[in-house]
Amino acid sequence: MTRPTLDESVVLHDDAVAILDRRRFPFERVWVRCATVDEVAVAITDMVTQSSGPYFAALYGMVLAARDAAHLSAVDARAALDKAGDLLVASRSTNNHLRKAVNAVLAEVDATGQVTGNELVDAATRGAANGDETYRAKSRALGEHSAKLLPDGARVLTHCWADAYLIETVAAAGRLGKDISFFCTETRPYLQGARLTAETLAEMGVDTTLITDGMGASVLQSGAVDVLLTAADRVTLDGHVVNKIGTLGLAVAAHAFGVPFLAQVQAPDPAAPTAADVPIEYRDGAEVLHTLGVRTASDKVRGHYPAFDVTPPRFVTTIVTDRGPFAPDAVARYHQPA
Amino acid sequence: MTRPTLDESVVLHDDAVAILDRRRFPFERVWVRCATVDEVAVAITDMVTQSSGPYFAALYGMVLAARDAAHLSAVDARAALDKAGDLLVASRSTNNHLRKAVNAVLAEVDATGQVTGNELVDAATRGAANGDETYRAKSRALGEHSAKLLPDGARVLTHCWADAYLIETVAAAGRLGKDISFFCTETRPYLQGARLTAETLAEMGVDTTLITDGMGASVLQSGAVDVLLTAADRVTLDGHVVNKIGTLGLAVAAHAFGVPFLAQVQAPDPAAPTAADVPIEYRDGAEVLHTLGVRTASDKVRGHYPAFDVTPPRFVTTIVTDRGPFAPDAVARYHQPA
Repeated sequence: MTRPTLDESVVLHDDAVAILDRRRFPFERVWVRCATVDEVAVAITDMVTQSSGPYFAALYGMVLAARDAAHLSAVDARAALDKAGDLLVASRSTNNHLRKAVNAVLAEVDATGQVTGNELVDAATRGAANGDETYRAKSRALGEHSAKLLPDGARVLTHCWADAYLIETVAAAGRLGKDISFFCTETRPYLQGARLTAETLAEMGVDTTLITDGMGASVLQSGAVDVLLTAADRVTLDGHVVNKIGTLGLAVAAHAFGVPFLAQVQAPDPAAPTAADVPIEYRDGAEVLHTLGVRTASDKVRGHYPAFDVTPPRFVTTIVTDRGPFAPDAVARYHQPA
Repeated sequence: MTRPTLDESVVLHDDAVAILDRRRFPFERVWVRCATVDEVAVAITDMVTQSSGPYFAALYGMVLAARDAAHLSAVDARAALDKAGDLLVASRSTNNHLRKAVNAVLAEVDATGQVTGNELVDAATRGAANGDETYRAKSRALGEHSAKLLPDGARVLTHCWADAYLIETVAAAGRLGKDISFFCTETRPYLQGARLTAETLAEMGVDTTLITDGMGASVLQSGAVDVLLTAADRVTLDGHVVNKIGTLGLAVAAHAFGVPFLAQVQAPDPAAPTAADVPIEYRDGAEVLHTLGVRTASDKVRGHYPAFDVTPPRFVTTIVTDRGPFAPDAVARYHQPA
C-alpha cells in the first residue's frame, strides 16, 4: 500500500528542517525551510503544520539547536538546548506533543553524559530518531487495534484529520485483507477533512466520499456507514473525548442511530481526571467568516470558534489506544499495571 | 424595525420582473431582469432566488405571461397562461410553492370570466397580489405564534435561511417587546446562513453570531442557546420535519442536551402522510467540493449532497404553523375543522 505524502511531511536535512505546508496542501505542495530552531518555532506558531506535524518538527528542531550549540561547552550547550525546548513548547500552547518531543531529545543527550561537538549532535539526532520511532510505533499499534475492530467491508465516517492514526489504521486494515471505505467531513473552518483526509485516503487507494459538516447525522441515519471513527486530541481518565469541534454532534447522532463510535488516542491523559481539567481553546472567530482566506460570510456578523468539543462517555462506544481498546468508563486502566 | 433587503427581493416592473440574485448576496447586490415568463423560469432553475423567492417570482412571472397574452383571444390567452404555469412549475421540481403561485393567478383570472386585453392583465395582477398577500399573511401569523413561544431574552440557534418565517418571527418579537439574539450556522455548501440569515438578522438589528455547521452540538451542550428554531421545507402528517441538510444533527443534539426544537411551516403537507412519501433530493456532489465556486477539496475525492434530511418527530418539540403550535404527533389536526 502506498504511503501517503503526509506520512513524511517533516524532513531533517543537513542544513535545515523542511516542513510541508499543510495550510496549502494539497492545492500546492510547498515545503517551508527552517534553518534554525527559531524558524521551526515560528512555523509551528504559524500553523504551517498541525496534528502530529509539530511533534516531528519539534524533534528535528532540537537537532538544529544541537548543531548550533555544538561549539559551546557542555554546560552552555545543555542550557541552549533547554532554551530551545522552552521556545518550541511555547510555540503552540495547547499541543501536548511538543513537550514529549523536546523531552525525547533531552533524555538521550542527558543519558549520553556531558557532551559537546559531534557527540552532542549525534546524541540529539538519536533522541529525535527515538522519538520519531516511538510515536510511529504507538500509532502503528493503535492502528492495528483499530483495524481489528472494523468488519471487512466497513464503511467508516471520520471527521477532521486523524493523521498517523488514520494512516496506520488504513495500512493495518490492508494487512488484514480488510476492504474499508470512508465518508469524511470537510471540517470547517480549516477544511482538514476536505484537504488532508480526503487527499491522504485517495493516495492510499481508499474509496472516499466527502460530505459537509452538516451531513453527518443524515449519513448515520441512512445506514450508509457502519462506524464513526475519529482521533481524540485528548481523552480524560473518566472517558470524555476532547477532539476537533464537530465530533460531539457526530457522536450524539451515531448514538441516536445505533452506530458505534470509536475514538483513537495513544493514551488517556493522566493529568486530566475529568473534562473540567481540560480548558477548551477558543480561536479567532474571524476564521469562521472566511474559507481559505476569502470572506464567505456577511460583513455584519461576528464569528464564534471553539476549536474543540467534549463528548461525554455516554456517547462513546470504545476508546482505542496503543495498548488496545477500552470501554470509556474503563480507560483509566490504561495506566494501571496489568 | 427595519424591513430587511430580502423581504422585497422580487419586484414587478412595467416591463419585467426583477429578482435579487441570492447566489451573490450580500457580497454583491445584483438584480436579474426577466422580461418574459421564460426568463423567470430560467432564473428559478438557475437558483437566482430560492426559499420563498421562487413563489414570488412565479406569481409575477404569470403577470408577464398575461401581458404577453393580452392581444390573444380569451381562449388562446387562457391556454398561454396554462403553458406558462406548466413552465414555471417545472422550473424547480421539488418546490411545492410554485404550483400554489400559478394557481393563485389562474384562480383570479378564471373567477373574472373569459377575459382578454387589459382585463386579463388586471385579473392576473390581482391574482398575483392576492397570492403575495396570502403568503405574507400566513408567514406573519406563523411569526407571531413563534414569537409568543420565545421567552424574552431568548438566545436562538437557527440553521440555513428561514426567509419570511424568520423575518416575521423577529418582527413579531419586536412588537411584543422581546429582545432575542441568534446563533446561525453557515450552512454549507451554499452558505445561506453565513450570507442570507446573517445579513438579514444584522439588517434587522438583531445580535447575531455565526458558527460553522459542526459547532451546533457544542453550542447546544454549552447552555449558550435556549431554543433551536428552523423552517421546514415540508412537515408530514405524522410529524416528520423535512428541511435543509444539517437540521437533523442539530435536532438530535438539541434533544440530547434538553433544548427545545421549534420547526416552522405554514401547514403540514396533506399529500405526505409520512416520511416515506417525501423523496429526498440529491443534488450535484460537486457542490460539496466547492465554496462560492472555488475548489476547496482534494481533486481526488467525490462529493455527496443530500439536499434535505428528515427529522423524526421524537426529536421535534413543537411545529409552529400559521394556525398556531402543534405537538408533532398532533400536527395532522391542522387540517381538521375545529
